[in-house]
Amino acid sequence: MAMKKKPVTGMKDILPKEMEIRSYVMNQIRETYQTFGFTQIETPAVEHIENLSSKQGGENEKLIFKILKRGEKLKLAEAGSEADLVDSGLRYDLTVPLSRYYSNNANDLPSPFKALQMGNVWRADRPQRGRFRQFMQCDIDILGDNTNLAEIELVLATTTLLSRLDFRGFSIRINDRRILKAMAAWSGFPEESFDTVFIILDKMDKIGLEGVSEELIAEGFARETVEKYLGLFKNIGSDVEAVKSLGETLKDVLKEGVAENLQAIIQTVDSVKTGDFKMVFDPTLVRGMSYYTGPIFEISMDEFGGSVGGGGRYDEMIGKFTGNDTCACGFSIGFERIVMLLLERGYEVPGTSVKKAFLLDKNLPQEILENVFREAAEERKKGVQVNITAMKKNKKFQKDQLTQEGYTEIKEFFRN
Amino acid sequence: MAMKKKPVTGMKDILPKEMEIRSYVMNQIRETYQTFGFTQIETPAVEHIENLSSKQGGENEKLIFKILKRGEKLKLAEAGSEADLVDSGLRYDLTVPLSRYYSNNANDLPSPFKALQMGNVWRADRPQRGRFRQFMQCDIDILGDNTNLAEIELVLATTTLLSRLDFRGFSIRINDRRILKAMAAWSGFPEESFDTVFIILDKMDKIGLEGVSEELIAEGFARETVEKYLGLFKNIGSDVEAVKSLGETLKDVLKEGVAENLQAIIQTVDSVKTGDFKMVFDPTLVRGMSYYTGPIFEISMDEFGGSVGGGGRYDEMIGKFTGNDTCACGFSIGFERIVMLLLERGYEVPGTSVKKAFLLDKNLPQEILENVFREAAEERKKGVQVNITAMKKNKKFQKDQLTQEGYTEIKEFFRN
Repeated sequence: MAMKKKPVTGMKDILPKEMEIRSYVMNQIRETYQTFGFTQIETPAVEHIENLSSKQGGENEKLIFKILKRGEKLKLAEAGSEADLVDSGLRYDLTVPLSRYYSNNANDLPSPFKALQMGNVWRADRPQRGRFRQFMQCDIDILGDNTNLAEIELVLATTTLLSRLDFRGFSIRINDRRILKAMAAWSGFPEESFDTVFIILDKMDKIGLEGVSEELIAEGFARETVEKYLGLFKNIGSDVEAVKSLGETLKDVLKEGVAENLQAIIQTVDSVKTGDFKMVFDPTLVRGMSYYTGPIFEISMDEFGGSVGGGGRYDEMIGKFTGNDTCACGFSIGFERIVMLLLERGYEVPGTSVKKAFLLDKNLPQEILENVFREAAEERKKGVQVNITAMKKNKKFQKDQLTQEGYTEIKEFFRN
Repeated sequence: MAMKKKPVTGMKDILPKEMEIRSYVMNQIRETYQTFGFTQIETPAVEHIENLSSKQGGENEKLIFKILKRGEKLKLAEAGSEADLVDSGLRYDLTVPLSRYYSNNANDLPSPFKALQMGNVWRADRPQRGRFRQFMQCDIDILGDNTNLAEIELVLATTTLLSRLDFRGFSIRINDRRILKAMAAWSGFPEESFDTVFIILDKMDKIGLEGVSEELIAEGFARETVEKYLGLFKNIGSDVEAVKSLGETLKDVLKEGVAENLQAIIQTVDSVKTGDFKMVFDPTLVRGMSYYTGPIFEISMDEFGGSVGGGGRYDEMIGKFTGNDTCACGFSIGFERIVMLLLERGYEVPGTSVKKAFLLDKNLPQEILENVFREAAEERKKGVQVNITAMKKNKKFQKDQLTQEGYTEIKEFFRN
């Protein structure tokens, strides 16, 4: 019986060229983040269905690949609904498993704990170009640090990594969920409408101030409120001064220190950064997940019309999961997008080793054969890639192929 | 609602110490195998249920984690059996996905194709100490080479890797499925009983020649046949000469060249090897999977009472899957066992970088703060791990902890 040749819907086989870049990027991530004191950990791909359905995952909880119970636990005849059939699922992110991991192992971990995770996640999303149902996520999280040292380190680590991968001229946009809320409150929106307001605000870069205004009014909000709100965004800068003046405007509805905290993060990153990027204050930055409690950030690149990573502070999430309050702050880079951008650029992985092919004639005498392997061992010890392979009838074709694959030296061995 | 803290049954959280070793071993694997011309590839963790149930996977097909259909495709009310509910499952090995990958992408791959795969596989095995339901497999396979260069390269690559990881004094046992069968045929066992005979023979190292004899007789085989068979194993050596003399004995039932091929592999590996290991002929080596068609091999280590890897030639499997005959030979190392052995030894990953901790007093003036990050950036550029963290009230405890974690230098920064 012939098998199905294509991968399952929405997932992909990774070919050698892409794999080389993925592997290189993963090593750069590991090495760079390690110098910032992050420690790599791993959780199983399979997670309890209860943990995946705890409402912290938002829309992703609708996209779970669920795993059937096994053996006697599967009672098909008695099953009234899907929930009776499954006991686990594939993780849809690395944050839910991190919460579980931390509560399971906190006694064996330092405090604060700086975690690096690289791993696949699965979402049964509608398949579309460039988005896959299995993809790699790469998160750094600092658990147990309530100072802005966490935010600064996360931004510096991420931007150092991107610079090492030759990305230039990108922006780190930053905002604070508390400023976002204060702006809405100051303008007169009721608290229960904030999420609706933010979903519309999030479209600012696509539909502009006018478009946002129209949609807010169409949603039924008072024109006066909308105008007061959008007035805040007019002529606002993207630097420390903008945060300062906005902080003064909002001082009656904003907790003391919030604006100053954001100023300190922007100013510090701006003055100590080594990469070619801008740190910009963006009061329209929303970030989808409602679990964020403080500063939020996102990476924007002109060559890619969308976010290539983001994160923020989420001080309340782990406590909700585990029962123990733990402040936390994380930054996730869009691994798949970064790999895609590098592939599109024709990125060549630096420092790849010399490739030599040894073509062996049939029935070489034992002595010559042994000398071939000894010579190869010497080369390999020096890091040279040696491909020992049987000489084919169509030798010209074989040699052309090897040259195309990057073999710069092709050596032939014959019976004398 | 508090979440479940433990990982799902049979799976594990990987703590920083183990992760460091895993990561190092993975890099050693990648680097070493690369010098032998292997190219890394990856397939999705999720595979078509049809491909996983094609009978090539043997007993593993009973251990599949199956994935529920989604959306409208799931018709619970109409489902008569488990098969109606699932469309895919988690891969239980890397060989089935490799077959699919090769038939899907052969046009874009060189021939012969030397593939390296490192990836998790899942088996719903009975949980037991040291065996997990998610574990890493690491396979190298050469597809499209029908010469023994493939076997020799696989053994040399694997033993070079083990030597780099400081393993000494291990053995590579080798046999050939065709010799195994010829010995049984020569003794008078009917072909349909071979599998039964081999299952008993496989216990030789545990129950000895006497025990094997008793079990074969208890199974109903003629005493004469059993004695003739076991006579072959008596006084047989483990070197090239043993293969030669056995080949002569079996010449009426053994295809010409099979013994000579095995001799050449043993002799070549023996004379060109650089690591501290023995290559031994072992006529009792069976390897479970019936898909092997030629030479088979296994790694034995005294410090671990069992196999830490194995493989062999399987020239007919890919054709059965894909409809196109493709000769193939592979070697899989027991990644989890190797990591376990290194952990038990207290293995220290070589070349780990210097670790420095910077403790920051509260509310440092902006100027000092910036200098701290600049100093850290300089150190990090040199590869030093710098952990910037807020100074705690119990500074002595904090510093003791950091020292325990391997921070050799702790620097404190205060408001002046």
